[in-house]
Amino acid sequence: MPTSTVRTGIAGFRGYSGAELVRILARHPDVEPVLLEHRADSEGRARPRGAEGPKCAPCTPGAVRDEGIGLVFLATPHEVSMELVPAMLEAGARVIDLSGAFRLRTPEIYRAWYKHDHTQAALLGEAAYGLPEFCRERIRPARLVANPGCYPTAANLAIRPLVDAGLVERSAGIVCDAKSGVSGAGRKATLKTSFCEVAENFSAYSILDHRHVPEVLQNSGLEEGEFSFTAQLVPIDRGILETIYFRTARAIQAEEIVHIFERFYEGKPFLRIYDPGVVPDLRAVARTNFCDIGVKADAKTGRAVVVSAIDNLVKGAAGQAVQNMNLMLGFAETEGLL
Amino acid sequence: MPTSTVRTGIAGFRGYSGAELVRILARHPDVEPVLLEHRADSEGRARPRGAEGPKCAPCTPGAVRDEGIGLVFLATPHEVSMELVPAMLEAGARVIDLSGAFRLRTPEIYRAWYKHDHTQAALLGEAAYGLPEFCRERIRPARLVANPGCYPTAANLAIRPLVDAGLVERSAGIVCDAKSGVSGAGRKATLKTSFCEVAENFSAYSILDHRHVPEVLQNSGLEEGEFSFTAQLVPIDRGILETIYFRTARAIQAEEIVHIFERFYEGKPFLRIYDPGVVPDLRAVARTNFCDIGVKADAKTGRAVVVSAIDNLVKGAAGQAVQNMNLMLGFAETEGLL
Amino acid sequence: MPTSTVRTGIAGFRGYSGAELVRILARHPDVEPVLLEHRADSEGRARPRGAEGPKCAPCTPGAVRDEGIGLVFLATPHEVSMELVPAMLEAGARVIDLSGAFRLRTPEIYRAWYKHDHTQAALLGEAAYGLPEFCRERIRPARLVANPGCYPTAANLAIRPLVDAGLVERSAGIVCDAKSGVSGAGRKATLKTSFCEVAENFSAYSILDHRHVPEVLQNSGLEEGEFSFTAQLVPIDRGILETIYFRTARAIQAEEIVHIFERFYEGKPFLRIYDPGVVPDLRAVARTNFCDIGVKADAKTGRAVVVSAIDNLVKGAAGQAVQNMNLMLGFAETEGLL
Amino acid sequence: MPTSTVRTGIAGFRGYSGAELVRILARHPDVEPVLLEHRADSEGRARPRGAEGPKCAPCTPGAVRDEGIGLVFLATPHEVSMELVPAMLEAGARVIDLSGAFRLRTPEIYRAWYKHDHTQAALLGEAAYGLPEFCRERIRPARLVANPGCYPTAANLAIRPLVDAGLVERSAGIVCDAKSGVSGAGRKATLKTSFCEVAENFSAYSILDHRHVPEVLQNSGLEEGEFSFTAQLVPIDRGILETIYFRTARAIQAEEIVHIFERFYEGKPFLRIYDPGVVPDLRAVARTNFCDIGVKADAKTGRAVVVSAIDNLVKGAAGQAVQNMNLMLGFAETEGLL
Repeated sequence: MPTSTVRTGIAGFRGYSGAELVRILARHPDVEPVLLEHRADSEGRARPRGAEGPKCAPCTPGAVRDEGIGLVFLATPHEVSMELVPAMLEAGARVIDLSGAFRLRTPEIYRAWYKHDHTQAALLGEAAYGLPEFCRERIRPARLVANPGCYPTAANLAIRPLVDAGLVERSAGIVCDAKSGVSGAGRKATLKTSFCEVAENFSAYSILDHRHVPEVLQNSGLEEGEFSFTAQLVPIDRGILETIYFRTARAIQAEEIVHIFERFYEGKPFLRIYDPGVVPDLRAVARTNFCDIGVKADAKTGRAVVVSAIDNLVKGAAGQAVQNMNLMLGFAETEGLL
Repeated sequence: MPTSTVRTGIAGFRGYSGAELVRILARHPDVEPVLLEHRADSEGRARPRGAEGPKCAPCTPGAVRDEGIGLVFLATPHEVSMELVPAMLEAGARVIDLSGAFRLRTPEIYRAWYKHDHTQAALLGEAAYGLPEFCRERIRPARLVANPGCYPTAANLAIRPLVDAGLVERSAGIVCDAKSGVSGAGRKATLKTSFCEVAENFSAYSILDHRHVPEVLQNSGLEEGEFSFTAQLVPIDRGILETIYFRTARAIQAEEIVHIFERFYEGKPFLRIYDPGVVPDLRAVARTNFCDIGVKADAKTGRAVVVSAIDNLVKGAAGQAVQNMNLMLGFAETEGLL
Repeated sequence: MPTSTVRTGIAGFRGYSGAELVRILARHPDVEPVLLEHRADSEGRARPRGAEGPKCAPCTPGAVRDEGIGLVFLATPHEVSMELVPAMLEAGARVIDLSGAFRLRTPEIYRAWYKHDHTQAALLGEAAYGLPEFCRERIRPARLVANPGCYPTAANLAIRPLVDAGLVERSAGIVCDAKSGVSGAGRKATLKTSFCEVAENFSAYSILDHRHVPEVLQNSGLEEGEFSFTAQLVPIDRGILETIYFRTARAIQAEEIVHIFERFYEGKPFLRIYDPGVVPDLRAVARTNFCDIGVKADAKTGRAVVVSAIDNLVKGAAGQAVQNMNLMLGFAETEGLL
Repeated sequence: MPTSTVRTGIAGFRGYSGAELVRILARHPDVEPVLLEHRADSEGRARPRGAEGPKCAPCTPGAVRDEGIGLVFLATPHEVSMELVPAMLEAGARVIDLSGAFRLRTPEIYRAWYKHDHTQAALLGEAAYGLPEFCRERIRPARLVANPGCYPTAANLAIRPLVDAGLVERSAGIVCDAKSGVSGAGRKATLKTSFCEVAENFSAYSILDHRHVPEVLQNSGLEEGEFSFTAQLVPIDRGILETIYFRTARAIQAEEIVHIFERFYEGKPFLRIYDPGVVPDLRAVARTNFCDIGVKADAKTGRAVVVSAIDNLVKGAAGQAVQNMNLMLGFAETEGLL
């Protein structure tokens, strides 16, 4: 192991996002992953004899210090992250938190959507929102990065360029109909994510009041009344596809909207735009850090539809976390991710 | 077999809708199904020895007359139905056509959406649109019933009561984000419906220009520019769920919208409405002729979401066809369907 | 409700087998189902307004007596059934237990496979094994029927005719490679049955030591060393397919084996045999009480393969329970099941 | 592109195995893939704008020579491969054929299982069977390598060590119950591989007479009468799991069998053995070139079960082809495959 590699800890490594992080970091040339054992609440999987994995250590400030861990990923529930973040920062590590604990700007907004008080309100102002396509310069020096939610990642990347370009007839609002694979709900066994409840089914939940909504409002410039969001469960393992509807503020062809996206994301390696009228499906982004965007529009009647697709565990979680780490540690933004 | 049973022919009985018709009619006490062999283009399935099915006959006017068939179901592609409908009518049978051939009111509308001329334009005016909840009285005496498309069934049943009640802020339009199981695409082998293309995937198609759109316009009172529709393929066998978004023309609670639906569908046995804030999933309607509807609304900001769910092969095809047959032949509307 | 209907209680009605029982009994003309609330450990599903279900009562001897319940189905875990069976019998009800609690003949065999003592050993001798195709006469008058396991139902129905006919070269043993849908594991949320663990996966478990093995030994005449059984999880909701391999004791064509099955099951309404070389798949039996059997053989080398398929929730659980009830209460064996 | 890279052609690159080859070769540092357009019979997928793929050329001897292609992969049906192999060899390229065309040793065996004559019988003797764990030294210098079938890869790797060690009681035979994901059937649209035929289903096919059987006989030392093989379709995209049953020639614990596998595969990087009693599932090998093997045995009764799992598109097709290429071109055996 060359001396230049950075030791990075991973808490929650048995969950789906955590396991994806372990997989991605295993092929990253510049870091040495260390599994931080927080609680043994989740079963591992059967493994072949002699299979070697990364080093393990307890998820404590002492161990983080002793192991010389410079950056910690928290792939833990938001209540756990709220507790671990100050401890890890005190131990001298920088933190990328994959939970929702530090994504909202004020304790008031947090309370309104999470329905309980934030116990580390002082850190909310410090946390950088980890959407590199929008916040690259805030992320680079940050001590604490709040990795975005999976739904808001696909939504913000599709909506912000439209709003910035003044394309959206705001009085009509934007509809974001979101569909997610089941891994987005985490690895904890629940009836809701049981095979027989999900298979041969499709269901909507958190209509208009999903906790991810304020992340979209904060980053897109929309007001709550302008943004109608529904989350839905698709019987697949991974992937998020969002179908986004709006009325255009002026007559515009799909081709021009495509150009707006292309200009907005010039030089951004993980955004891919499709030809007018062509939209991505989930297979196009599976197991990649890409966000793919396609546009259909009817200039005559002023209606437009944008489809945005990501892999919820990669660009929607672990991949984006590594993209943030690359920025924070001065590596190439795409290292380990192509 | 009592003398009062009516012989009903089924063309296209090896397709998914046709096979569902055979299953439903097998337990209907008042009809005797006869399979009408049109083309042997589709393989059957392996069957146990000695399994008896319905009688078979060729799908010709002569056979229909000889067998004394009083009503024919056409579960055939629209090009085939266009050819068979006049032949069956001439043979003295009444016809329920499950294809799109006779659903639109004029040859002009047909040409605009199907991109070819209608070869039996004279029959378009005669055909009754077979959505019993709206057109019961036209269906009863009809010689030719055009069974609605699966998407429009779920959409019209959800949208028409809202439009009629003046609830929809029409300048903002209605969004109908539709998701369908794969059986909706028929049994013909195609790459698009191959297991490995569909599984672990989710994809949108026919955005804004699906052939089912004019069926919604004709029956809901909306203009094309007011209705944004996307069809999407879910990796499941059967079921359609539509998430319908609109802005309310006045401040209104979900509860009041629920009451509007309840009043609209009083005495309609196949419509089931949910408590405010509760919405159906696809399992709720699987293998039933129900259309389930749930409502969520935010009175403060004037946004509302309606979820409408059906089984595409039952209420979206074969079940609705039998419901129409019950009306046409004077049976109880629910016979064979509960 | 005519006075001749029999009130039947269902404990465990929210589980998959219990819910299937409720569905089947709802269309059975001769019984009135009553839901027996045992523990509210399992969430129900969202339901439409005004949906009426069966009557509810607590699962206590007093309530069973007060409600005049003549027969109780226990779709409960085996520990719970062991407790409830004596209580229900004392309350004067006959019992069909769908768990494994009363299927084995002696407390010694029970202890050997379930790894704990049987607390109601005295009732083991009384319980009739509820496989109607083998035990019809013992079932009719029984006070307590032990409804067979899903795997043993498919296995015994395929193996017993072969063993009885002396077809099996017993020194080579019989291999039964069994595959089951996930509903066989019950509705309780577990990591093992979580969507993301099961989907896009296939896994073997309980190789050679599954608790269902002794049910096969007891009913087929095989010794443990002659029977190699593996249970495997298929990413589907329901269905069991067993591929059964043996070497024939004499040169024999598939056709002759098919005849042996046909003779064995003459007059048995739920057994369907296929042409030589043709075997059932799971779709053939889905949502039916049939057990379908097909045979392939190579007379030259003395190898034979039998495929046996059932729906694990119907012939493997609730359907067979109703078949047993029909025998116990003197109804037609197929009532409510075709 | 460094001068030392080898240009490798891929015919059939739109099929599932071919596409997997393209993916693997894209990250192989020592080769430059060239897509050989043979027939435009298969649709591509929608792609983002500006996405660059490998170079394209026609699949002709002239183009192969002009492009300086040193090695050609044929991911084509066996009839097509039979035609293309001599042409490619004449053009000076070495060939790895992924079809069944050149896997069997004699034209007589070929005719017996494929039911037609081999048109290139002269090349059968020359072709090396591309199972590197068994035939490494024959593969290295070969002009033509016949990449093994997916089922035989998992079967031979599990069975040969057992037969070589004399562990198998041969009079009782070996049962190999094989389950495959649907991608094994190729990308051509067929009713059999349609989503609605496969989903919520499980089916057996080619019982005892699958074309892959002779590949197992040739490489394991078994006679046809000793080997009972069934292929089965699992509703998943990719993966093969084989459950292999035999009676042991002497009393032996699972632990000792595990040791036999470990010794047999020492130094073979793609074989992974599990602890006694632990077996792999398909998720363990998905998207990898590993073959995972686990063992359960009952020494008392002389029964043993071995589970062997691979990804059918990787170790069962494209990955193994690249492993063969690595040997033929002198690269590290694992290059591009870990």
